[in-house]
Amino acid sequence: MAVAIIAASMTTFGQRDSWLGDLLAEAGEACLENATVDPDAVEHCYVSNMASGEFEGQSGVMNALAADLGLVPAYTARVDQTSASGGAGIYAAWQSIAAGASELTLLVGGEKMTHVSTAESTDIIASLTHPVEYKHGVTLPSFAGLTARAYLERYDAPRESLAEVAVKNHANGVHNPHAQFQQAVDRETVLGSPIVADPLRLYDFCPITDGSAALLFCPAEDATDYTDEYVTIEGIAGATDTHAVHQRAEPTVMNGVVESGAQALEMAGTGPAGIDVAELHDMFTILEFLQMEGLGFAEPGRAWEQVMNGRTRRDGALPINTSGGLKSKGHPLGATGVAQAVELYEQLTGQAGDRQVDADTGLACNVGGFGNCVTTTVLEGAR
Amino acid sequence: MAVAIIAASMTTFGQRDSWLGDLLAEAGEACLENATVDPDAVEHCYVSNMASGEFEGQSGVMNALAADLGLVPAYTARVDQTSASGGAGIYAAWQSIAAGASELTLLVGGEKMTHVSTAESTDIIASLTHPVEYKHGVTLPSFAGLTARAYLERYDAPRESLAEVAVKNHANGVHNPHAQFQQAVDRETVLGSPIVADPLRLYDFCPITDGSAALLFCPAEDATDYTDEYVTIEGIAGATDTHAVHQRAEPTVMNGVVESGAQALEMAGTGPAGIDVAELHDMFTILEFLQMEGLGFAEPGRAWEQVMNGRTRRDGALPINTSGGLKSKGHPLGATGVAQAVELYEQLTGQAGDRQVDADTGLACNVGGFGNCVTTTVLEGAR
Repeated sequence: MAVAIIAASMTTFGQRDSWLGDLLAEAGEACLENATVDPDAVEHCYVSNMASGEFEGQSGVMNALAADLGLVPAYTARVDQTSASGGAGIYAAWQSIAAGASELTLLVGGEKMTHVSTAESTDIIASLTHPVEYKHGVTLPSFAGLTARAYLERYDAPRESLAEVAVKNHANGVHNPHAQFQQAVDRETVLGSPIVADPLRLYDFCPITDGSAALLFCPAEDATDYTDEYVTIEGIAGATDTHAVHQRAEPTVMNGVVESGAQALEMAGTGPAGIDVAELHDMFTILEFLQMEGLGFAEPGRAWEQVMNGRTRRDGALPINTSGGLKSKGHPLGATGVAQAVELYEQLTGQAGDRQVDADTGLACNVGGFGNCVTTTVLEGAR
Repeated sequence: MAVAIIAASMTTFGQRDSWLGDLLAEAGEACLENATVDPDAVEHCYVSNMASGEFEGQSGVMNALAADLGLVPAYTARVDQTSASGGAGIYAAWQSIAAGASELTLLVGGEKMTHVSTAESTDIIASLTHPVEYKHGVTLPSFAGLTARAYLERYDAPRESLAEVAVKNHANGVHNPHAQFQQAVDRETVLGSPIVADPLRLYDFCPITDGSAALLFCPAEDATDYTDEYVTIEGIAGATDTHAVHQRAEPTVMNGVVESGAQALEMAGTGPAGIDVAELHDMFTILEFLQMEGLGFAEPGRAWEQVMNGRTRRDGALPINTSGGLKSKGHPLGATGVAQAVELYEQLTGQAGDRQVDADTGLACNVGGFGNCVTTTVLEGAR
C-alpha cells in the first residue's frame, strides 16, 4: 500500500530548556494542528530517540507523548537506530501503514543533549560503536578524521572542498528559522577553526543540539481527505555495514549508504539522476562526500568537485542540504532523520520559503553511527 | 499478508555472565540454526530491548548483533516499549513482513540486569513511569501493592488466591529447562515471605533476570519452504493507557489490556473462548488476575476463582503461563514478550516436552510499565 506524509513540523533546534517529553509534544502537537487532525484519530505513534535514559534518566517517553497529545489508547513504541533513529522511525511508520496496522501514524523524533557536558555526550554517543573500538577510546570524530585524511590523499582533493560543505550548509541555514546556527561562515573561518581530529576542524563538525521533529502518515489513497499538500514515499530501505569500522575493506565507502540507497531508488523506480533535492547526513563534512558517492550522485572520488563547482548549492542542479544540514541546523540524534524528511516535505509542497528550490522528488539519507546502519527515503511531491 | 513464525529459541534465563550482545547472539544463532536458515537470507533484524545504555552503558546492540550473526547488510533497529518491548518487537517484525519490506525477519529480545544493584535496577525501571509519579518515588511494585489491596477488598477475594498464582507458575517452571527458578513453592512459603508492598510479598514478584529469546518470521505462504513446525500470527495489536497511573478511573482495570486484547481477538476472528493456552505478564501475581479479566477469560472480579479452582493449571481448561511465567521463568525486560511467544510456539508445535498441553491457539499479553502500553498476540498452530 502506498504511503503519504500529510503534515510535518519541527521545533527550533538548539539549546532548549525543555526536557525531551516537552520537545516531543511541541513538534507532535504542531504536526497534528498542521493537518487539522483530531488526536483521537491517530492509531500508531512512534518516537525516534536514541538515548533518553542515558541523557535524562527518563524512559517510556513514547507513552508520555501519547498522554500529552491525547492519543491514548493509540499504540506507541520507541525506535532506536542510533543517529539514524529518525530514518528508522520513518521506516517503522511506513510499515505500520503499508501493513494495514494503522490508518494514521504520528512519528516524532527528538533528543535532549545540551544539558550534559561534551565529554558526557561524546561518551554516550561513542557507546554505539563496536565494544572493542569503544574500549580503545575511538569516537565518531576520530573515525571522521581518519576517513577525511584517506579521502583527501587518495583522490588528491583540496582541503578547501571539505570547508566548502560547511560554507554551503551554513549559507542555507541562514534561511531556516528552525536552525541552530542561522549564520553564514566563510571558508577562512572554517579553515582557521581549532583542530578536532586532523585534518578536520571545529567547523567540519555538527553541533550538539536539543530538538524534535514530527511527521504524519496515512495511506496515499486517503491523503486528499486531509490535505492537498502531501508527499508520497516512493522508496525506503535500510542497511547495515560492519559494526567494527576497522573491518571495512574500503574506508571511503559506506556500504550501508550504497545498499540502502540502491534499494530505495530501485523501489522508487528511479536512479540518482531522478532526484531533484537531497538531505544528507553531514554530521562531519566528509560524510557529505561519502553519501554523494555512495548514492550515485557522484563518481567515487569526485564528489568534492561538485561541491567546489556549486552544483550542490541551492541554485545548483542538485541542491544538497537546503535545510542547512546537520552542520548548521543541528543534530538532535533521534530528530535528525525526521527533520530531513520535514525539509523535503516543505520543499516538495512549496512551503520552504527563502530556501525553496524547484523539485518534484527528494532523497534523505540518515546515517547511524559511522555508517553502521543507514536508511534512505525517496519522496515525491503530489502535483 | 499473513505472517508465520518458523523458528524460536531462548537462552537460559537467570544470572548470566555474558553482556547483552552475547546473550542476543546466543538466542539469535540458535533460532537461525533451528530453522536451518542461512544468515544471509535475513532481511530485517529487530532487537527488543528497553535499557542497554542504562544497564551496561552500551548502545547500538542491534548493529552488534547483525555483525555477530553474519546478517550484514540486513536492516536493523531496536524497539523499546519498556517491559513490553518484546511484544512491540513482535509487532514490528509482523509489520515488516506484512508490509512486504522483508521476506525473512529475525527478532531477538534481551536484557542484562543482574549485574547492577536492586536499587539501581529499580531506579532504571521506575524511570518509565510518569515523571510526576517517578519524582514522588512511586515504583511499579508500589502500584502493584495498591492495586492488589484494592482488588482483594473490592471483590472479597482471599489473599491465598494471589499466592496460588505464584504456586501454579512455579509448578510449571519446574518443567522449563530455561527457567530461572526450576523449583516448586508452596502456598505457605509465598504467604510467609517478606512483605515488599503490602499485601504483596517477595514471592508475589518476578525476579530480576538476564536472558534473551528469538523468533524468525516469514510470509505464511512461504512457511512450508522452511519447516512444517510453524505457527501463524492470527491477531496482533497494541494499546496505551494513561501514562500517569493515578489518573485511571478504575484501578483494577488495565485499559491497554482491554483494548489490545479486543483488537487482537477481533483480528483473529475469535474471542476469549477460542483461546486454548495463554502466556500472561505476571510481573506481579495481581497482574495475572487483571489480564484474565481484561482479556475476557474471566468476568471482572472473578479471575481469582479460576486460579483457586485449578482452571488455569496445566491440566485445567485454560492453562496460563505454562512456561512458568515471569514469576518463575524470569523477566529480562526486552526478552519477556518474545519468550512468551517462544513458549506458545513450542506448545502449538508440540515441542513443549513435560509442559505440553493440548492447544491449537494461544494468546500472549505483554504489559509495558503498569499497563502504560500493552501488546496482545494471537497465534495458531499449523495443523
